[in-house]
Amino acid sequence: MIDVGIVGGSGYTGGELLRLLSYHKEAKVVAVTSRKLAGKPVSSIHPHLQGLYDLSFEAATAKQIAERCDFVFTAVPHGTAMDWVPDLLDAGTRVIDLSSDYRLAVDVFEKTYNIKHRAPRQAVFGLTELHPEVAKAKLVGNPGCYPTGATLAVAPLAKAGLVERVAFDSKSGISGAGAEPTETSHYPSMAENVIPYRLTTHRHTPEIKQELERLSPGLKVSFTPHVVPAVRGILTTAHVFVKADALETVQDRAAIAGIYQEFYKNAHFIRMAQGMPKLSSVRGSNFCDINFETELGGDRIVVISAIDNLVKGASGQAIQNMNLMAGLDERSGLWFPGLAP
Amino acid sequence: MIDVGIVGGSGYTGGELLRLLSYHKEAKVVAVTSRKLAGKPVSSIHPHLQGLYDLSFEAATAKQIAERCDFVFTAVPHGTAMDWVPDLLDAGTRVIDLSSDYRLAVDVFEKTYNIKHRAPRQAVFGLTELHPEVAKAKLVGNPGCYPTGATLAVAPLAKAGLVERVAFDSKSGISGAGAEPTETSHYPSMAENVIPYRLTTHRHTPEIKQELERLSPGLKVSFTPHVVPAVRGILTTAHVFVKADALETVQDRAAIAGIYQEFYKNAHFIRMAQGMPKLSSVRGSNFCDINFETELGGDRIVVISAIDNLVKGASGQAIQNMNLMAGLDERSGLWFPGLAP
Amino acid sequence: MIDVGIVGGSGYTGGELLRLLSYHKEAKVVAVTSRKLAGKPVSSIHPHLQGLYDLSFEAATAKQIAERCDFVFTAVPHGTAMDWVPDLLDAGTRVIDLSSDYRLAVDVFEKTYNIKHRAPRQAVFGLTELHPEVAKAKLVGNPGCYPTGATLAVAPLAKAGLVERVAFDSKSGISGAGAEPTETSHYPSMAENVIPYRLTTHRHTPEIKQELERLSPGLKVSFTPHVVPAVRGILTTAHVFVKADALETVQDRAAIAGIYQEFYKNAHFIRMAQGMPKLSSVRGSNFCDINFETELGGDRIVVISAIDNLVKGASGQAIQNMNLMAGLDERSGLWFPGLAP
Amino acid sequence: MIDVGIVGGSGYTGGELLRLLSYHKEAKVVAVTSRKLAGKPVSSIHPHLQGLYDLSFEAATAKQIAERCDFVFTAVPHGTAMDWVPDLLDAGTRVIDLSSDYRLAVDVFEKTYNIKHRAPRQAVFGLTELHPEVAKAKLVGNPGCYPTGATLAVAPLAKAGLVERVAFDSKSGISGAGAEPTETSHYPSMAENVIPYRLTTHRHTPEIKQELERLSPGLKVSFTPHVVPAVRGILTTAHVFVKADALETVQDRAAIAGIYQEFYKNAHFIRMAQGMPKLSSVRGSNFCDINFETELGGDRIVVISAIDNLVKGASGQAIQNMNLMAGLDERSGLWFPGLAP
Repeated sequence: MIDVGIVGGSGYTGGELLRLLSYHKEAKVVAVTSRKLAGKPVSSIHPHLQGLYDLSFEAATAKQIAERCDFVFTAVPHGTAMDWVPDLLDAGTRVIDLSSDYRLAVDVFEKTYNIKHRAPRQAVFGLTELHPEVAKAKLVGNPGCYPTGATLAVAPLAKAGLVERVAFDSKSGISGAGAEPTETSHYPSMAENVIPYRLTTHRHTPEIKQELERLSPGLKVSFTPHVVPAVRGILTTAHVFVKADALETVQDRAAIAGIYQEFYKNAHFIRMAQGMPKLSSVRGSNFCDINFETELGGDRIVVISAIDNLVKGASGQAIQNMNLMAGLDERSGLWFPGLAP
Repeated sequence: MIDVGIVGGSGYTGGELLRLLSYHKEAKVVAVTSRKLAGKPVSSIHPHLQGLYDLSFEAATAKQIAERCDFVFTAVPHGTAMDWVPDLLDAGTRVIDLSSDYRLAVDVFEKTYNIKHRAPRQAVFGLTELHPEVAKAKLVGNPGCYPTGATLAVAPLAKAGLVERVAFDSKSGISGAGAEPTETSHYPSMAENVIPYRLTTHRHTPEIKQELERLSPGLKVSFTPHVVPAVRGILTTAHVFVKADALETVQDRAAIAGIYQEFYKNAHFIRMAQGMPKLSSVRGSNFCDINFETELGGDRIVVISAIDNLVKGASGQAIQNMNLMAGLDERSGLWFPGLAP
Repeated sequence: MIDVGIVGGSGYTGGELLRLLSYHKEAKVVAVTSRKLAGKPVSSIHPHLQGLYDLSFEAATAKQIAERCDFVFTAVPHGTAMDWVPDLLDAGTRVIDLSSDYRLAVDVFEKTYNIKHRAPRQAVFGLTELHPEVAKAKLVGNPGCYPTGATLAVAPLAKAGLVERVAFDSKSGISGAGAEPTETSHYPSMAENVIPYRLTTHRHTPEIKQELERLSPGLKVSFTPHVVPAVRGILTTAHVFVKADALETVQDRAAIAGIYQEFYKNAHFIRMAQGMPKLSSVRGSNFCDINFETELGGDRIVVISAIDNLVKGASGQAIQNMNLMAGLDERSGLWFPGLAP
Repeated sequence: MIDVGIVGGSGYTGGELLRLLSYHKEAKVVAVTSRKLAGKPVSSIHPHLQGLYDLSFEAATAKQIAERCDFVFTAVPHGTAMDWVPDLLDAGTRVIDLSSDYRLAVDVFEKTYNIKHRAPRQAVFGLTELHPEVAKAKLVGNPGCYPTGATLAVAPLAKAGLVERVAFDSKSGISGAGAEPTETSHYPSMAENVIPYRLTTHRHTPEIKQELERLSPGLKVSFTPHVVPAVRGILTTAHVFVKADALETVQDRAAIAGIYQEFYKNAHFIRMAQGMPKLSSVRGSNFCDINFETELGGDRIVVISAIDNLVKGASGQAIQNMNLMAGLDERSGLWFPGLAP
């Protein structure tokens, strides 16, 4: 049995780690921190967990947590995780960080977030389908929600060298913005609405570029996010424009399908959807559903991916990373369907 | 042309007054206050109004507003309106107060809101269908949203002396809680949810009692509110239990329909609905739709009313009051349908 | 390992049985029928189940199903289940019927549904918290969704003899109306709306009466349903009016809390909620959350219950019944939290 | 006073014409047809219109309608309008057709809709901001909802010769799919979901191409639609990639803003938004809100437009066309704000 700690258990990703780990037969949450809620039972802020956990939040230090845990998930804001990670690693604990502190090269991180990195460490980018080396990692930078859906949608085409340019247009549920009420997340603002934001400057863009350029140097990436009236989920529409020498391939649907099948043949959580991927098919689950359509006579492939931003886009993927790091089947505790309807 | 001022124009009821008065041919908004937004155009916070108003918010005093206005709407929180109303009245302006400061007898107000009333004044309860005397009022206490829907649903039966007890169960859109983001109004909390609150102690209960007991002394009233995933609207289900001597009447649908028709024969904004009242039929409009069903062999009548909480439940009713006070047709600027679908 | 069959697997309750049974370690779905979808994989209509089932729908007869199954769930419309149940029972299979065919006394059923019952059989009403005798049943009539939430909310007070009258006001997600698109379930009709229906004549009323009158003869019950903009869940508001001799008890919150605790002390899926029950706390789970408030100086207790209509209100409860009938822990395959946010 | 007829009044665009024309001081609906609802009052299917119209649906012929009307709106499905239009025109009535029958060149129409055109006529494409010649038209083909939002977003850049390629990604409310319930519009399918469809083959693409290629020959257009959980509105994200010789212009936000201001200087219903356009700012109104962001150091401009698909995308634009054809101010009956929140 793996003893697990969660640093930062009061937010959505912390709550989701608790929810998901309640299914896990080989891991057990033994500590969960929250400074402001110290002493309160986890069900006081996560009422859906009532009856499933006896745990209360603690105001423990990294060292105190490390002593009791084999694995620790840091689910605190970016810029804060770096204050926890070094002590946890130094104590021999393996860490999956859900913030953005360990996903990017230090210089890219500092430029993107406009923060000086106080504790750089060796880390693996935890998109398991592309990074089997997470199995050996001491520290994993768990990918952002948008980069997960976007990268998985286009990675096979990028690796195949087909892509000239891709314009990602993502539609996210508002839970991605966190548990703190804001003007945008106010129900009267968000209901029956679609709200685009940071049209050309979202901080997740460098993660997507990092992963796709690694597979296909020189590929051009742009990314525009929107929030839609949904709690969970990200549907990403990838407008892929292929290279001049790939125009014939675009006309061959089966060939492209084959590229995806080959690329993801060992990826349990990637499903090539029979119909169109949609949020409802993956809601609450760790699946990433993908499908595409090619433009007859054109140079465009439109790829759609759907994930649950809190599961495959955050806490589920984090557990998938833990499973691999611990030598378990990557499906442990995660092999269940989404909630539909 | 009536010159109108709005004290407190940044919230939902202030914005709704601006929206509705843009339709009015005989009234014009000449001043709108907001301390925190002084100097900014009204469209900076109400983007749907861009192009329709050149006005900017002002940080004016009551006296300054009174000088320029024939009518003033006070759309500020309860406990604050009483700081504006005396100066406005003393300057000869007529006032419609959308807060709860002038709806109840002073002792009831003080007990309900746990505030000492600093400026009691003579006021009329502005439910126009029951209070034609608003026409002569200098100060109108515009009814709360819940009391509007609840009282209108049951007033005819109460007046007819049929009612022993009524249990109101109301379902409100979340805009009733205001423009300020809260934990309850957070989209991930409110979407796909139903949230009951203050099951037996909501502050609007005394208003409902005041109005129904006036029509039928001794009638027993209880009230339980809920918020549902809707921006606008209140659907009220009135579980009416009739007196022992009214059991026969309950069995005669036509007789009860007749009671409603007679009671509301001059009320333009009350519609006896053909089917079930629902929020979508009144959304954005000043109508109150009503229908009912009687229990075969029983002692119960279930009455349903539907209003838009920001229109008939607040700003629309306030303008209806102004129309009557100014000697206009009560429909002026309000005679348009709701937005459906 | 229990071999399970599902008769009628294309609808919401069928799909939900498949979803929930994918978690179950001691039961396995070996057959699922659908005449119109025979030959198609279950994921063709339930895309969220892709990868979790290799099953295809079959057009099998009751006898063919019975041969292969220890337990069969009939998830077909009322009036149709009675054509399946006799053959299944006669073949020695134990049956949990999710339709309304085996919940009521035959005469009450025939009057309520206006159908002649073609195959009456001995059955137990499968509300496990009130009917431990399901353990021995060959045939269980799985309760309706509304009766589950309503009965559980008030049963302890009824048993304690406190209740004079109760008016249930329920707010249901629209999945309760099934997978077939209708005018009411059309998104533009249902979004941002509240739709009351069958104010005094809903067919679930006799089930509620049957259960509560059993606990407290003479208790008066009324029931009014609404649909709200939610996919899953029923929040029931029980306006309880107590007997004249119970007025003192109403004033003693702790006494009433004690009544609930005692009544439900062995009921794993009943949670006395810390705050207000709400749909989000039970969504996707088999829990029923309950809380209440008493009216100071009054004769009213308002009780709130929240369930997921497709789980505790249908398929989850059906599996809970199967667990008890099979001698398993009632939590088998059902002991996980809801999906929040 | 203009006498107006509506052919096909039972659907959403018919209902919306009725709603909007109730505000119009210079036009009056004198006839509205529906074969299946003949004899029933319009409020029987449009309950929000109760009290505002005494009209009932008729099963009249084109000639009968033409005799009584100066203008007729045909709000029937594509392929059906062509059976009405010739008779209406021959009788001297002016016609605004809301179907797709008169928007495209005949050969393009036939290829796109796979229907032989039975009654080609001279028509003007009724996007008034680009086609002032509607003023003289006898027949106007009112634009599709997607083409309206897409074309208005990019027309100024296209006219300026800046655009190499544009990938439109549109997010539409589900009312665009009509009043008939379908699997997609079923609330449990649509709520909390995003559903992409016809990724590369939507029938509105030729309309967008027709209009933009007219302004900038050789410009490459692609279009991908999605439905989101909203009743009304289309938010279009235009991913614009500029020509090699326009790279400097992209870096000059003010220059691009100037291009929009100049292009739309006389367009009352186009608002250059202060913040991001969103559905809530235009809901229920005839406005099209536009804003954009340019990519620092890149070759991309992202333009956002927001319209209400039933107003500016259908019935409002149709009335705007009628106003121009009749020599009225284009704002007549349409100059009011949207419904927010």
